[in-house]
Amino acid sequence: MTQLNNVGIIKKANIYFNGKVTSRTVLFPDGTKKTLGIMLPGEYEFSTDLKEEMEIISGKLEYKLSGHDWVTIDGSGIFYVPANESFQLKVHTVADYCCSYLNE
Amino acid sequence: MTQLNNVGIIKKANIYFNGKVTSRTVLFPDGTKKTLGIMLPGEYEFSTDLKEEMEIISGKLEYKLSGHDWVTIDGSGIFYVPANESFQLKVHTVADYCCSYLNE
Repeated sequence: MTQLNNVGIIKKANIYFNGKVTSRTVLFPDGTKKTLGIMLPGEYEFSTDLKEEMEIISGKLEYKLSGHDWVTIDGSGIFYVPANESFQLKVHTVADYCCSYLNE
Repeated sequence: MTQLNNVGIIKKANIYFNGKVTSRTVLFPDGTKKTLGIMLPGEYEFSTDLKEEMEIISGKLEYKLSGHDWVTIDGSGIFYVPANESFQLKVHTVADYCCSYLNE
């Protein structure tokens, strides 16, 4: 089972949309961070500061980047969101994700 | 902000009750583990293998240990569940928790 090692984790959860989207922040020795989160079915819009790598570990959803069409992920998949953009999600089944914040 | 340091975290979430209860497993260098989780409003029953320390970081809920009355936690609080028992929860608002598994 994939495990992130030698990390710090902030105990308190990040809670959005009345708990329908929640995550925990994981801090790496090199100063980078990831969030491990859960999204329940629903429609959401998020915006980025840094570029983000969104890895869907499990779940079925559609995502839409600014200026692009809707794309479906069913099971697992990965997509990237540029810095300082917003993106939309239609989550169809409980989605488990890992978001990496990229300093590029 | 309280942070758990020098730990491992299993990337994949633990998902129960259709995603209404989810957690992440955190592994400590001494071999012990905790789970950091979220419970959405609802009624749940869980059972323990090891003794558990349930720390409610935020949220409002009632819990009932076997043979005891219902007890309310509003905001934060802590309770212990003996090994090999079941306990009931009525979660009234999104609850953020940290469960420690105790080898006693």
